Amino acid sequence: MISVALMGHGVVGSGVAEILTTHKQKLFASIGEEIYLKRILDLREFPESPLADRFTKDFDQIISDRDIRVVIETMGGINPAYDFTKRCLKEGKSVVTSNKELVARHGAELLQLAKDNNANYLFEASVGGGIPILRPINQCLVANMVDEIAGILNGTTNFILTKMINENMPFDDALSLAQQLGYAERNPEADVEGHDACRKICILASLAYGKHVYPDNVHTEGITKITLEDVEYAASWGGVIKLIGSCKLLEDGMMDIVVAPMFVPCTSQLANINDVFNGIMVRGDCTGDVVFYGKGAGKLPTASAVVADTVDCCKHLKSRKYLFWADSTEECVADYKLSKTQVYLRLLADNTEDAYNKVQEKLGSVTKLSKADAPANELAVVTDKALPYGEILDAVDSLTQDGIKVLSNIRIGNL
Amino acid sequence: MISVALMGHGVVGSGVAEILTTHKQKLFASIGEEIYLKRILDLREFPESPLADRFTKDFDQIISDRDIRVVIETMGGINPAYDFTKRCLKEGKSVVTSNKELVARHGAELLQLAKDNNANYLFEASVGGGIPILRPINQCLVANMVDEIAGILNGTTNFILTKMINENMPFDDALSLAQQLGYAERNPEADVEGHDACRKICILASLAYGKHVYPDNVHTEGITKITLEDVEYAASWGGVIKLIGSCKLLEDGMMDIVVAPMFVPCTSQLANINDVFNGIMVRGDCTGDVVFYGKGAGKLPTASAVVADTVDCCKHLKSRKYLFWADSTEECVADYKLSKTQVYLRLLADNTEDAYNKVQEKLGSVTKLSKADAPANELAVVTDKALPYGEILDAVDSLTQDGIKVLSNIRIGNL
Repeated sequence: MISVALMGHGVVGSGVAEILTTHKQKLFASIGEEIYLKRILDLREFPESPLADRFTKDFDQIISDRDIRVVIETMGGINPAYDFTKRCLKEGKSVVTSNKELVARHGAELLQLAKDNNANYLFEASVGGGIPILRPINQCLVANMVDEIAGILNGTTNFILTKMINENMPFDDALSLAQQLGYAERNPEADVEGHDACRKICILASLAYGKHVYPDNVHTEGITKITLEDVEYAASWGGVIKLIGSCKLLEDGMMDIVVAPMFVPCTSQLANINDVFNGIMVRGDCTGDVVFYGKGAGKLPTASAVVADTVDCCKHLKSRKYLFWADSTEECVADYKLSKTQVYLRLLADNTEDAYNKVQEKLGSVTKLSKADAPANELAVVTDKALPYGEILDAVDSLTQDGIKVLSNIRIGNL
Repeated sequence: MISVALMGHGVVGSGVAEILTTHKQKLFASIGEEIYLKRILDLREFPESPLADRFTKDFDQIISDRDIRVVIETMGGINPAYDFTKRCLKEGKSVVTSNKELVARHGAELLQLAKDNNANYLFEASVGGGIPILRPINQCLVANMVDEIAGILNGTTNFILTKMINENMPFDDALSLAQQLGYAERNPEADVEGHDACRKICILASLAYGKHVYPDNVHTEGITKITLEDVEYAASWGGVIKLIGSCKLLEDGMMDIVVAPMFVPCTSQLANINDVFNGIMVRGDCTGDVVFYGKGAGKLPTASAVVADTVDCCKHLKSRKYLFWADSTEECVADYKLSKTQVYLRLLADNTEDAYNKVQEKLGSVTKLSKADAPANELAVVTDKALPYGEILDAVDSLTQDGIKVLSNIRIGNL
């Protein structure tokens, strides 16, 4: 029997407790020993829970209990999860988490602490919910140089974009619907501004390239400015708009990493990922493109990934899993203005023919897009060549000075 | 330094030798030790190879070399791979393979032998080529009961069907093209008759359910009878025809397992998997549907999966990976005639209205499908309800006796 503790009995934590109970037999068969959930830390009371006798409000009951070998952290947020995780690892207890914010912010430090104390720190559930992704990258694709990772990493924004694309629903209505259905928080900023996707691409990049990438160093754009007009032009181009987190390794060893809405061609596997589903493409030099698809959030999918990590910790009580990345500085991340991309622009101009010429002066040849019922003073184009994003921003400024209003500016994903 | 040997320097084997050379640094970083490819067994000569001095024609040079801890078997076929693998495992050497035929035929025995000798027997590359699938099922989805696995497991047939669907190319032409491009063998039977897909669904089912499923016990149909007419009717139904290997766990613990062409609705993730790509859907009780996509064959994708397993063996020289299934009998597989499915039928009848009535007498209500330029004496329908497949076969017999010719009979996939 291996004793474990759970910190945080919210959505994911209660799912973990549930799976440890309902799947006891299967887990036993895999480990050869029983997992015993000895303590559950939460400030709230759960008198109705069948595990009511295990609850505690006192972290000391976990940290000072030498029986407890694995601690599952599903509290979320930085504090006190950060402090508790450090203290557990220092005691040689392995820690499993779904806390992407903590991993993205302090992953390198916590992995080092785990290493120093011969413990494991695992967080499969922090990216892609129930989709296996970190272990496959770390183990199955170990014989590849990962050229690029790109994914739909946030289910809330993918739900909103799907409604905009398939049902012509304006952004605000789609957001309200997502809130009604419980997919979006009352304050939706972390999702719609791209911060959640940013944490996840940071974790993926850190794992794939061995250096911690901090969210503050990643250029991040959300989907709040996407309009139904943009969705229609994307369709006429042959694609859909998706919020993509992407990271490429440049020849000089720097990372070209960004979170932004992008045009994705319908031929891409990422174009067909709808609603709250996530999809992650890993481009290896040997495997080519591999795509992982599934539910990126939700109680049981996420909890099942947490429990799988818990099983792995129970199997490796005396040895370490080879999951590690080193700390780093912002210098490993390339300036986003140097990142080359094609771009779609939607412009408002009194004379669209004149605007078309001006755009080509500044950005080289472009291809016009059309849509039904486009206003006479609207021009939509896609650049034929990829250009450094800074040059595109300069061109947008210059067009604005020429009296041409740039309504939209969306990258073309090479996916 | 960990010494390994390679048996079979064909397409996959030469890819393994290549990756062990080109990715030396990355592999070293992962293991903390160098992998040294000490011997390569092949009956042919490779004087141009940079590793020419490592080649041998004598298996004794591998089996009797105590330095060699891991043996990579990429010979394919049953003999002598089966004998060599047994002898390696008995010596306590771990074995890694891409040999799906051997795993599907003798997996339970070889896994038991590995267990008895404290060695590992790993075969990620045997299913889905470079796509991570066995390790994710075994580790990442361990906290799930797997309700169903269904996949496009053979790239050759998927290439042929894609050509039929997207380019209206008849089967024979698509097969010839696949042969020209090197996707299909001169004798294409193993692919087009479904045997290759059958071996792979057997391996997946064995792993997911812990009991060896032998290919001989699995009802297998190929794609040789699929016509362009069927492809068109599938489109009018809202889907595409794919060769699917599928396995469901029934309530009584039996497996409902089949390989057959199926109508797949366009809304399914499996419908969008084209050309030589593979896609595998795993339906877990906690995760819901998870899909894995990528190149299911090819030199470097397959070799990269073999090398990843080799790395895992090198990390676990003294311990065992928890990959195992027990032997079993045909009794774990349910009679395919009891398996319930909806079905599409294409019929030839002098009086189609009469035929329509007769079909409904025998199979309950059906929905007619239409297509442009359908001959007046053709009727295409899909049953509204799922029925035991044996009843469908009986109905087909009975229709034939009534003078109605059943041209096509294709299952509807619930995917």
